[in-house]
Amino acid sequence: MLNHRILLNQRPVGEPNAESWKADQEEVRELADGEVLIKVLYISIDPAMRGWMNAGKSYIKPVEVGDVMRALGVGEVVASKNDRFEVGCHVSGSVGVQEFAISDASDLVKVDAKALPLPVYMGTLGMSGLTAYFGILDTGMPQEGETVVVSGAAGAVGSVVGQIAKIKGCKVVGIAGGEDKCKYVVEELGFDACVDYKSGNLRKLLRTECPEGIDVYFDNVGGDILDTVLGQINKKARIVICGAISQYNATEPQGPKNYLSLLVNRARMEGIVVFDNYKKYPEAIAQMIEWIKAGKLNINFQEEEGGVAAFPEVLMKLFKGENTGKLVLKIQA
Amino acid sequence: MLNHRILLNQRPVGEPNAESWKADQEEVRELADGEVLIKVLYISIDPAMRGWMNAGKSYIKPVEVGDVMRALGVGEVVASKNDRFEVGCHVSGSVGVQEFAISDASDLVKVDAKALPLPVYMGTLGMSGLTAYFGILDTGMPQEGETVVVSGAAGAVGSVVGQIAKIKGCKVVGIAGGEDKCKYVVEELGFDACVDYKSGNLRKLLRTECPEGIDVYFDNVGGDILDTVLGQINKKARIVICGAISQYNATEPQGPKNYLSLLVNRARMEGIVVFDNYKKYPEAIAQMIEWIKAGKLNINFQEEEGGVAAFPEVLMKLFKGENTGKLVLKIQA
Repeated sequence: MLNHRILLNQRPVGEPNAESWKADQEEVRELADGEVLIKVLYISIDPAMRGWMNAGKSYIKPVEVGDVMRALGVGEVVASKNDRFEVGCHVSGSVGVQEFAISDASDLVKVDAKALPLPVYMGTLGMSGLTAYFGILDTGMPQEGETVVVSGAAGAVGSVVGQIAKIKGCKVVGIAGGEDKCKYVVEELGFDACVDYKSGNLRKLLRTECPEGIDVYFDNVGGDILDTVLGQINKKARIVICGAISQYNATEPQGPKNYLSLLVNRARMEGIVVFDNYKKYPEAIAQMIEWIKAGKLNINFQEEEGGVAAFPEVLMKLFKGENTGKLVLKIQA
Repeated sequence: MLNHRILLNQRPVGEPNAESWKADQEEVRELADGEVLIKVLYISIDPAMRGWMNAGKSYIKPVEVGDVMRALGVGEVVASKNDRFEVGCHVSGSVGVQEFAISDASDLVKVDAKALPLPVYMGTLGMSGLTAYFGILDTGMPQEGETVVVSGAAGAVGSVVGQIAKIKGCKVVGIAGGEDKCKYVVEELGFDACVDYKSGNLRKLLRTECPEGIDVYFDNVGGDILDTVLGQINKKARIVICGAISQYNATEPQGPKNYLSLLVNRARMEGIVVFDNYKKYPEAIAQMIEWIKAGKLNINFQEEEGGVAAFPEVLMKLFKGENTGKLVLKIQA
């Protein structure tokens, strides 16, 4: 059986391009004891992928040149030498950009394909949703009545952050690119407002929507937007640094020029990595399923077609801001 | 009686210069009920003064053009219509850059001129020392065995920060400018090491002195030094933003390009303002007096002569890094 896959061909400087990737195929090998063979159905397209392509110390080891590109995903177990995962069950875990993944099962969890669409296990109930959950609750610490601002508000993480902040009784203002996304954020996700950073004067728009200042900022984008928000934070504000999609392809990264606003406002800027919370995943997922059932949490995702060959192009949609909700790539049916 | 004083003449762009100041004199007026007349003996020269000269929202209102420049200081009460402060007692408070200050006494505290040299009440036991105390203990939260790095290590705040971190059982590495200062920091203040940022490769020097990475960084300087430290922090590091003396005169401020190290390391960067802790000043001062008596805390200060006329020049010594320990200006005997 042939496995089509995408390898990291060359570490990019700036934006990934055609040279970054190499399409490849190999015969699927026999399983060793404890392993399972997963037919990959969907992979999760994440901004973090850009970081994994870089050499150097980070929160996770880089993908090596020549290796299959790392990707989280969901699939069906089609062969198994592991008692915990029987043929026919669905699993979520690190599968890579390929059609068939052999896993030692150490990071796999079973998912219920009948309860919810499979992409939800990569989105609201996957790494994106968990990042949102722990980031906003444990680090953002939103209090009832506070003003919470979220960038990348239409994205996989931002959309969940804002909905959780609403559940906690906050005023929630999103930042997104374009009228359609802003409309989506307010009408479908229930944010109180959403400002379009592409429309011109973000500073003024934010001031209008946040007349009492900003208590919590959940940042997925970095760059000028972070600086603008820093100019409007309240005393003791909490800024959650979850990502910086505007900077991942930058060859000369831009630091927040307004960081001394932290001093003036005795405010805090703190980075988060979802994996630190793995022991608390079950309780977070249980809570989010409850919210989904209660209609308080929208399971938004955007599904792209094209299999592994479409991966390089679909990844760029993230950096161009062309997705609304969790972006997933369908690998096969 | 004539009062010589220095007024803010013009808000500077970049470094303060001769145009920024105006020397002036006025006849001392009669006291109203509740007021005291202070013969100013010393004023405290603080980096924060540069911020007070700017218009715009900050943690304290700006000095208005035409007003006496704000300064903390110590002096002797020479006339009093306030029962709490008798003629002859010594006080510390906001006195301004002038020879005689009339105060409603609301911010004055009595100090004991016999117990310690008067400048100590502006340094180790004044705003600088209190900033160090609350910043390192409450925000830096150093744990025994951790590595603490302090910039501006020979300065008024940094010198106290490092000594407190030593008392708490940490490995303490200072950053200062020049061999003499570094020698002072190690030999007089008892830091484990001090690296000279002017000597060339700060990155390498820090790595040599902090082989286990940096757990707490107390930043007084900002700029490239902050970026270099960000590249060497440990997981869950705490960065205390106390000041950014390299940036106060900058017309185009420099943000920390490496701020995404906060994300990778789940680290925190937090601003502090000493005034938030005013209710806890007495216990902090009591603790520091105990440490001084026990020989654990060095009361370092640098006294400049020249009275109010010397103020513009002495202030620039701070920005040029020409002081070791708390910088004070003697106003009169």
